[in-house]
Amino acid sequence: MYKFEKLAQSIRQMIEEGIWKAHDKLPSLREQSELSGYSLMTVLNAYQELEAQGWLYAKDKSGYYIAERAELEISQKEAPPAQEKIQINSVVFNYLKDTQAPDIVPLGSAFPNPELLFNSKFMQLLSQHAKRKNSYLNHPNMPPGNLELRQIIAGRYQLQGISCHSDDIVITSGALDSLNLSLQALTQPGDFILLQETVFYGAWQAAERLGLNVITLPDHPESGFDLKAFEKALKQYPIKVCWLMLNAQNPIGYTVSAEIKEKIAQLLAKYHVHLIEDDVYQELNFGKEKPVSVKYFDQQHLVLHCGSFSKTLGMGARVGWVFAGPYSNAIQHVQLMSTLTVSPLLQNALVDFVAHHHYEKHLRSLRRALDQNKKRFYQELKARLPTDCKIHYYPTGYFLWVELPTDMDSQQLYTNLLAQDISIAPSLLFRPKHQAQNFIRLNCSFDWNDKLAAAVDQIVQQIETHKKA
Amino acid sequence: MYKFEKLAQSIRQMIEEGIWKAHDKLPSLREQSELSGYSLMTVLNAYQELEAQGWLYAKDKSGYYIAERAELEISQKEAPPAQEKIQINSVVFNYLKDTQAPDIVPLGSAFPNPELLFNSKFMQLLSQHAKRKNSYLNHPNMPPGNLELRQIIAGRYQLQGISCHSDDIVITSGALDSLNLSLQALTQPGDFILLQETVFYGAWQAAERLGLNVITLPDHPESGFDLKAFEKALKQYPIKVCWLMLNAQNPIGYTVSAEIKEKIAQLLAKYHVHLIEDDVYQELNFGKEKPVSVKYFDQQHLVLHCGSFSKTLGMGARVGWVFAGPYSNAIQHVQLMSTLTVSPLLQNALVDFVAHHHYEKHLRSLRRALDQNKKRFYQELKARLPTDCKIHYYPTGYFLWVELPTDMDSQQLYTNLLAQDISIAPSLLFRPKHQAQNFIRLNCSFDWNDKLAAAVDQIVQQIETHKKA
Repeated sequence: MYKFEKLAQSIRQMIEEGIWKAHDKLPSLREQSELSGYSLMTVLNAYQELEAQGWLYAKDKSGYYIAERAELEISQKEAPPAQEKIQINSVVFNYLKDTQAPDIVPLGSAFPNPELLFNSKFMQLLSQHAKRKNSYLNHPNMPPGNLELRQIIAGRYQLQGISCHSDDIVITSGALDSLNLSLQALTQPGDFILLQETVFYGAWQAAERLGLNVITLPDHPESGFDLKAFEKALKQYPIKVCWLMLNAQNPIGYTVSAEIKEKIAQLLAKYHVHLIEDDVYQELNFGKEKPVSVKYFDQQHLVLHCGSFSKTLGMGARVGWVFAGPYSNAIQHVQLMSTLTVSPLLQNALVDFVAHHHYEKHLRSLRRALDQNKKRFYQELKARLPTDCKIHYYPTGYFLWVELPTDMDSQQLYTNLLAQDISIAPSLLFRPKHQAQNFIRLNCSFDWNDKLAAAVDQIVQQIETHKKA
Repeated sequence: MYKFEKLAQSIRQMIEEGIWKAHDKLPSLREQSELSGYSLMTVLNAYQELEAQGWLYAKDKSGYYIAERAELEISQKEAPPAQEKIQINSVVFNYLKDTQAPDIVPLGSAFPNPELLFNSKFMQLLSQHAKRKNSYLNHPNMPPGNLELRQIIAGRYQLQGISCHSDDIVITSGALDSLNLSLQALTQPGDFILLQETVFYGAWQAAERLGLNVITLPDHPESGFDLKAFEKALKQYPIKVCWLMLNAQNPIGYTVSAEIKEKIAQLLAKYHVHLIEDDVYQELNFGKEKPVSVKYFDQQHLVLHCGSFSKTLGMGARVGWVFAGPYSNAIQHVQLMSTLTVSPLLQNALVDFVAHHHYEKHLRSLRRALDQNKKRFYQELKARLPTDCKIHYYPTGYFLWVELPTDMDSQQLYTNLLAQDISIAPSLLFRPKHQAQNFIRLNCSFDWNDKLAAAVDQIVQQIETHKKA
């Protein structure tokens, strides 16, 4: 911890203990320096840090004062924790590396069972387009991307009752690219963003990479989304952008109700905050109706809605999009200096594939297979797991979120299983700042077989061993 | 300009005028604040800014002193200009957008004539691989990329006498990705980097995006590279990374001699500074021997050498690589949270294409065609241009760098020609901070025809009109 952080911490404590109240004037820099023995620079750094965190405000030439927000924070101890800089990269890097081995049981994999994503028609179309010269030309495929593909995507939004024009869409190199480009287009280093407490690690990584301050929203035990805490956070912090996943949420799996989504849209409008809506699993619902998005309720163009073909057709079709609306140009700006163009070949093949209803057919069989595999996996898992473990089952996506005995460290379990060529995804990947790390995410998109059964038995055995210890 | 920048400027002036000398103590923050009427915070910001720029140094609790470097700078007025924050994005964005129209005469294009890049064998291989399931699988293709492709690339380095192992190579999504990933892996916001004064705009954009301070190295009128100014810059500034293009330099076209490259490697070692070597045109030489790279002389693993297939096979083969050596992991870290994997289909097809010598054959015919087109274009251009224009011709690459009459603004010429559906690349794109903007880059990779002749005539006419005005 740097000197200034130590000083900032002790000042924060004094505010928390009620020694300083809202609008109290803090000692001047010089006074504080003489008082504390810290250098002027250290004092100023501490004050500025506290100001950035919303504890203080500065009046020019007059000095620093305690902010109202600080008092609010104390009176509401259940408020989201203050922002923290996250260092998640190495954890994720090791996880992605460890679980790459070809012969590992892929319960920790982030990707759906590739066998279900192969589509012979798509492969055939790609093969045909590979022979055509226009699959190698830049012009019609430069940002914002192939016009026909954008028209098709816009048409799919319209079918869901969302007004959308091809100019609203920017084609990207996949879901992660969509999310990263959106966040970069909307933020400056030092800005505050809001993330769900337990969320796709790519969000933590993007925040770290772009130098953003993260406010976390606690998971709601029933609905998944805590509206009250959400409004409180928007009120308390200068949040510029929210990054939320609300359909088949990764890693937990819940889908937030339409009512809550409508209220989220209203709150975004009230506080004029942008939303990056990660909706990459929108097609992986197993019910009769596709769940709506916050975008559906977005009257004021505050929502950048991100989707992708890579979760349904695999990494061989790594093409995504952002429904960017008025932010199309801003996103293309970032795109043209980073990921640049998206494969013309893939874009052309996707136009053919989606326009001719092959995609809908593919989605139907994919949903059916995922639904079956998930149910089977759930039953097998439930039959084996000790009763003090809880499986969070939702009829969407291909993950199961499993709660282990409270004193069990899933990171340790991860390491133990890896030695036996079994991968799982430990909760530290998704909630790096959370106390409770007794959760794991299991990929249940694979056809049940003896190898999976043996892997689950291993997990159970590890839990039993832990309980005896 | 912020208040603190104004104050910093006036302090800098006093140093430059010799009022303050090396190791002089500056007024304390409080004294300076009372002296100047600026707030303490403004004064501290100004001092910190000057410290970051190397004009001052701080002693804990004692205060700020004039740095030796500052005096050095004054005594050597011909030194490179101090760092400046660059705002190049909008200029580049408009250029890329303006010149995308399909029916424009593409003299401004950054890409080689696509007709020369099409390769029916590569298209056939892609088509074949598109039907194979393993072109859709992640595992063997995740960062650092397909092992066979890395072995092939390492083998090509070995043939050039450069020791290289497949583990040294990271496969990327093309040249821009290689360069951006390397820069991001090696720098933190606020770091100093060195760029050539006239250089690929992607370097300026990357510097802006990553919040880096840019020191520019003046172009050398004969050799292209000014070794003396280079060493001076390394001595004077806390440069962490150089980003240089030395073969078929974009946009000027020169290739720096092996002798100079060897000295660059020695200076990098002496000052322990990293080099990102942009060598995407390494295959586009028309002489008997491929020019060497600084990497060839790099004993201490300070050079990250970046290459790509997209400049020789087109955007349909947007696969690049970094010879990253010990920085392979650092680059994969950034990659796994941004551009992620590279198309397995493309990687598999490239393995087949390069391993079976189709690539060498393709390169031979590509070089021949580019050489012919460049010579023809040069002759036609020379016959038409007024004698006070100078064409910089080099037997590499596919660009001609043209010097217009000194009082002519190439940005204005660009706008005028665009109205006639002719694109050129004005010098502002490549040297945003330079006084002289009477240069244009012309793409001479196209087969000479009447349309090109008419476009060149238009350029000539614009120059004549300007001279009469």
